[in-house]
Parts: sequence; structure tokens; C-alpha cells
Amino acid sequence: MIQEKITTRDRLISAALKLFYAEGIGAVTVDAIAAKAGVTKRTLYYHFSSKDDLIVAYLEAKDQPSRALMQRWFDETRGDIAAKTRGIFLNLAQSACHAKWKGCGFLRTSAELANLPGHPALKVGANHKKRFEGWLQQQYEQARIFDATRLARQVILLLDGSFSVVLLHKDPSYMETAGDAAYRLVTAALQTVDRTAEIEPIPLRSAS
Amino acid sequence: MIQEKITTRDRLISAALKLFYAEGIGAVTVDAIAAKAGVTKRTLYYHFSSKDDLIVAYLEAKDQPSRALMQRWFDETRGDIAAKTRGIFLNLAQSACHAKWKGCGFLRTSAELANLPGHPALKVGANHKKRFEGWLQQQYEQARIFDATRLARQVILLLDGSFSVVLLHKDPSYMETAGDAAYRLVTAALQTVDRTAEIEPIPLRSAS
Repeated sequence: MIQEKITTRDRLISAALKLFYAEGIGAVTVDAIAAKAGVTKRTLYYHFSSKDDLIVAYLEAKDQPSRALMQRWFDETRGDIAAKTRGIFLNLAQSACHAKWKGCGFLRTSAELANLPGHPALKVGANHKKRFEGWLQQQYEQARIFDATRLARQVILLLDGSFSVVLLHKDPSYMETAGDAAYRLVTAALQTVDRTAEIEPIPLRSAS
Repeated sequence: MIQEKITTRDRLISAALKLFYAEGIGAVTVDAIAAKAGVTKRTLYYHFSSKDDLIVAYLEAKDQPSRALMQRWFDETRGDIAAKTRGIFLNLAQSACHAKWKGCGFLRTSAELANLPGHPALKVGANHKKRFEGWLQQQYEQARIFDATRLARQVILLLDGSFSVVLLHKDPSYMETAGDAAYRLVTAALQTVDRTAEIEPIPLRSAS
């Protein structure tokens, strides 16, 4: 019984993920999500009390996978953290070439909800971005960069800028340009690495 | 007769500007715009054949004033072009403190229309951004910066990133951070100024 409920809920979230990302939260009806999930509207409302609940669930479902993907791109890029940072942008440029790519679901949702400042989905979007910014900051701190907070914010600004600009111009080369800018900023920051600190450098990866 | 028509059309565009920017293009009905302009729906449809036409007129009306404002911020900031570039971001951070500030109308519209790639308003938004990018590139070319095209794109990415990030976090200090990054990138580019060029430097302003 519990198993069945989880599966139905998952099917609904999966349908919401596909439709909200492809069409936008305003353009998609609750009926369309129920139909895509193959359930009745009554069943949908058993799991989600409103469309707003579904929007929140959509962004919550995107949070961890989106961050994991960008972190994997960073980890898998060879070179120093400037090159690794650029690796995120270069991989993103590849993704943006796909016909189904429609920018950043979190930013697009926040643009659609600009008239509803208290909407709970905005909090989910803001938390997602802050978590990724925090992770990036941690990477820069581990590399002993002096102002890791500011550097992480600058890279996030370039990243979110490239989502918005590429969505507008349909030209993924802007992501490569943003990656170049991030590479320059991280490289410049690496020259300010705090070499006077008395603590031992924190290893980038724990031994396993 | 013609005078009256222009006035009605202007009132409609003014109503569209206020409502579409404040609420988003999806949330605002044609009826609401007619009511705000103090005209009947029949009169609205005499001037605009559809809501899509009104959305196009809204962005067309925003184009020149938005660019003029950012160019004025650039011009009025004292210092070299790195400082002038940062001036745009610092002034924008001030604007973003106002309760009525809701990010960039062009980017928000493009986010809302992501499911309608052929919508004419997307072209208006893209043209607006390209015109401002072109203007910025010109400023950098006049300062003899080697790769003015790339630098202008990087500054635009930071600018559009700050629109999106500040809309999400309601924290205009991200614009100052973006301005710092732009300042660094322009300053670094100024060190690559092409001093070998045989042509005379182009004056920044014509004598008047």
C-alpha cells in the first residue's frame, strides 16, 4: 500500500519535472500533469494539495541532481580549480545545445513568480542556489583562496548570467565566454592564496 | 483625431509597461490593461490585435529608456572605463533596493516565453540585449582593448547574472560583487591595450 503511494507520487513528480521545465509553471495545468502521470486529478490531489505544492516538489526534485551534475563536471575536469571551474561552463554549453534545453528551471520559476514574493517555491530555488554557491566557496577555501566567498559569488553570477543569456540568444558560446571569465577570476584569486596561514592545507579529497 | 489615437495608444503602452513589469506577462490579462488605461477592450483591440502585440509593444517601449539609463550611469561615473563599467552595477544595485524592482523585464519575459521559441517578443528582447552589448563593445574598442567583443560579452553575462540572482535572493549586494568582477576583467583587459596600432586613437567623445 505504502509502496503504491510512493510510486504514484514519484510518477507525478516525474511528470511535473518534464512539463514544468519544458513549458514553464504558468503554461502547465494540473490536468496536464495528472494526464502525463496517468492518474486522475483526484489522485493527484491526494498527493499534492495544490499546483503550488507540485511546483515546490518539482524544484525540490531538481535540487540534488542539478548540483550533483555540476559538481561532477567540476570534479572530472583535469587541472587546477580555475580549469575545474571552467569545466562546469564547458559542459553546460554542451547541454545547452540540446533542443530540450530551456535554461535554468530555478531561475525561470523565480522569473514567473516575481509577482508572488512569498511563494514557497522561491525559497526552494534560493536554497538550491545558495547550496551550490556554498559548495563552490568550500572548494575555493580548500585551495586557500583569500576571499573565497566573493569568488564563489562571482562565479555564480557568471553561471546564472549564462543561463539567462543563452536562453535569450540560443547561443551556447556565451557559456564558453562566461567560463573564460570565471577562469580568469579564479586564476587571479589563486595568486592571492594565503601562504602565511599556520594551519595545514586541507586536502581537496579525503583518502579513500 | 490622429492626436487622440496616439494618446490612447500611449496610455495602453504605459499601462502594459506597469502591469507586465510588476506582475509578469502571464499573470496580466488584456482586460486588466484596458482597465488600467481607462479604455474599453474594444478600444484596446483597435490599437493592438492581440495580447502578444501588447507584449511586443511593452518591450519595444522599454528598449531605448533602459539602454539610455545604463549608458548614463556609465558616462556619469568618474574614472577609467573599468570604473565606468562598475558604475552601471553600483547604480543598478541602488535601483534594486526599491520595492517595485522586479529584475529585468526582458529576461523575465524570455523566461516566461521559453515554451514559445518563435514569439516575436523574444526577438525584441534579444535585440535589446545585443544593442547594449554592441554599445559596450564600442566603448572598449574606443579604449583600444584588444578583445573588446569578448570583454563586452563577459560584462553582459555578469550584468544579466546579477539581474537573475538579485531577483532570486533579494540581495542587491550581488550587483556590487558583479561590478567588482567586471572591474577586474576590464582592468586586466586594459593591460592588453593595443599600443602597436598605427591608427590614431579614436576620441571617447566628439568635441562639442
